Amino acid sequence: MTCIVQKFGGTSVATLDLIKKAALRVKGEIEAGHSVVAVVSAMAGTTNTLVEYVRDLSTTYDRAEYDAVVSSGEQVTAGLLALSLQNLGIPARSWQGWQIPIYTSSHHAQAKIDHIDTDLLLQDLNKGTVAVVAGFQGVSLDGRITTLGRGGSDTTAVALAAALKAERCDIFTDVEGIYTADPNYVTAAGKLDHIAYQEMLELAAQGAKVLQKDSVELAMHNRVRLRVLSSLRNTPGTLVTSENELRTTRKHISGIAHTLSDVKLTLSALPSSLSLEDVKDLLKSQHIALDMGHQKLFPCGTLVDFSFIVPAAEESRAIETLQTAKNKFNFHDLLKNSAVAKISVIGPGLQTEYSPSHKLFQTLREKGIEVQAVASSDIKLSVLIAAREAERAVSTLHTVYQLDVEEN
Amino acid sequence: MTCIVQKFGGTSVATLDLIKKAALRVKGEIEAGHSVVAVVSAMAGTTNTLVEYVRDLSTTYDRAEYDAVVSSGEQVTAGLLALSLQNLGIPARSWQGWQIPIYTSSHHAQAKIDHIDTDLLLQDLNKGTVAVVAGFQGVSLDGRITTLGRGGSDTTAVALAAALKAERCDIFTDVEGIYTADPNYVTAAGKLDHIAYQEMLELAAQGAKVLQKDSVELAMHNRVRLRVLSSLRNTPGTLVTSENELRTTRKHISGIAHTLSDVKLTLSALPSSLSLEDVKDLLKSQHIALDMGHQKLFPCGTLVDFSFIVPAAEESRAIETLQTAKNKFNFHDLLKNSAVAKISVIGPGLQTEYSPSHKLFQTLREKGIEVQAVASSDIKLSVLIAAREAERAVSTLHTVYQLDVEEN
Repeated sequence: MTCIVQKFGGTSVATLDLIKKAALRVKGEIEAGHSVVAVVSAMAGTTNTLVEYVRDLSTTYDRAEYDAVVSSGEQVTAGLLALSLQNLGIPARSWQGWQIPIYTSSHHAQAKIDHIDTDLLLQDLNKGTVAVVAGFQGVSLDGRITTLGRGGSDTTAVALAAALKAERCDIFTDVEGIYTADPNYVTAAGKLDHIAYQEMLELAAQGAKVLQKDSVELAMHNRVRLRVLSSLRNTPGTLVTSENELRTTRKHISGIAHTLSDVKLTLSALPSSLSLEDVKDLLKSQHIALDMGHQKLFPCGTLVDFSFIVPAAEESRAIETLQTAKNKFNFHDLLKNSAVAKISVIGPGLQTEYSPSHKLFQTLREKGIEVQAVASSDIKLSVLIAAREAERAVSTLHTVYQLDVEEN
Repeated sequence: MTCIVQKFGGTSVATLDLIKKAALRVKGEIEAGHSVVAVVSAMAGTTNTLVEYVRDLSTTYDRAEYDAVVSSGEQVTAGLLALSLQNLGIPARSWQGWQIPIYTSSHHAQAKIDHIDTDLLLQDLNKGTVAVVAGFQGVSLDGRITTLGRGGSDTTAVALAAALKAERCDIFTDVEGIYTADPNYVTAAGKLDHIAYQEMLELAAQGAKVLQKDSVELAMHNRVRLRVLSSLRNTPGTLVTSENELRTTRKHISGIAHTLSDVKLTLSALPSSLSLEDVKDLLKSQHIALDMGHQKLFPCGTLVDFSFIVPAAEESRAIETLQTAKNKFNFHDLLKNSAVAKISVIGPGLQTEYSPSHKLFQTLREKGIEVQAVASSDIKLSVLIAAREAERAVSTLHTVYQLDVEEN
């Protein structure tokens, strides 16, 4: 019997009625002869409320207690979905992370799954019982509740699909799949029928919010076929799978991603003997990723400005870390600019196309949009621009790279 | 180092501000040199919301899933109180039932505590860490979450106090202690400074809602000294302890309890060969307790009416059970009267006083209040009357038994 993992996000289980609808989705797979593991998020809004409780009490909270508090939301949904399935005559039971167990690192609030013990789960699945698993959570080796970070339920679903060698992992959400660009920006954005892991990874990393980057990475490494689809409409969604499976049907460019959730920092007038790598290493020691680094040498040749972006959520920690190194780096000033956007063109065509960056820069120049920094990989080309230009840049590039679809 | 268990009920942890106040209570005991176990209920209202979710989905819900859902409320409070203590510089961590573990029977939604493994808890307590325990919940031997029934956090607190041989178990609540009668009925009701277990047990069983009956029973068997007190005011509350400790300071009558949460059922015109015990056994097989049983023989001598009360919450189950036995018992009709009140006079004086029932019946007769049934034990005398007479009966008996206190 093949196993299907179905993951229902917060907006797909926001009310009892939606939970009943999710139960019908599970029923469909059971009737098709599959065994099903359903992974659930907390009912939309719940996790935010719990996080606010914790933050209202303290800014420097104990992350182990944060995990104990916020993990409760998924526990509730798991029980309610199991009850809804039982109402449909389908045997089901809920599983907390510690019951399976899903063992994780002790890095509370951002734990990584270490391994999953599937014995108990399989016993139940083989009896035809649906396993309804509380997503986002696990248990450390010393028996504390851990959570995987926001969006971690996707990771739970993919990790279970990998451990159970599931046929497919369906991610039910409030959109119909992965789009060539944010439909809020580009009315002509089209849904992709399929996309390769590597490109999905870049899309996720570059701002497409549908799938969490970690979960795509995990799916790629374990060859878990992911499907992203709407919990409300019966459309096939987007299949995320290996390059091989998609060989014949590829587009040159998969999509244009953008993110406004970074902050640009500039260290000014450092000695030119320093390199950006020194700054990168310092931030890395605090688990802060630096991106889009670039520098400007002063005419004198002995001083340099370093600029780069960090996630807005890490802004204060990054600034604090850099200030402690003021004497070591000997910079003049630390400047901040929150009004930046990172725009990324993603697709396998970037490897083969003649000078793909040429098209990008030419287009932006023609539109009078200044490029502040550039970064690229085999399948990604990113530019940093002013936030106010983001929408215009995305929609222009969407047209230039021939991604526009006719409206229905 | 002596250990104190402090239990905070739902109204004592209803908001973040109240949770901070609870943390100050714990701090007080720490500063007095005690080690502290704090047991918490869910924030007031939370459990009701969760129970409604479950009941909205199904009336015949799986109790194991009910437990998974409703136990989440205590988990949240435990984490938040631990965080509040840490904010005060006091080492603290939260414990779920399964983490300690608190092992219970598998009788979901009404599980009984089997035993508590105190090893891990003691390791932490001995290091000076406050253990903040999620009340009301435990874990079955097969690893499912169980709950102890409404008010079960009291039982958690007492069981922990027993297992840890605590000096005292303080129950913080929204009233200032145990009263001689419901202050909503009797303005002259007075707070008791102390009361013996056995009388507290009768008070709890007969409708005083401050302490759950099971928890008093457990305290009595394990000689756990209980203190009931207000979380908002600094008053000493009521000490519940052994007869011995109280020997010199007893009142004859401790209080007048009342309950309006029973339903009177009457099976009419049964063969007089049947006995009330037959009915009692039938209901007992469904875990329904019958109380205040009485019968009326018909003039012919061959037929009899049986009347008794059952908890209103069990009404439909009781009626269903009795209907299935209609042929066996051969009764004519099943009548229901929800407008009854059980009034109980409780105290050691009932053992010694000359004809205590005489005073009770005389008083009620003088007031024109009809007694429908009577039940008694060494320290309790209960009568069943019309619900509309309850307030008048309680306040009259309160005066007659000399319990009235002068108002401040």
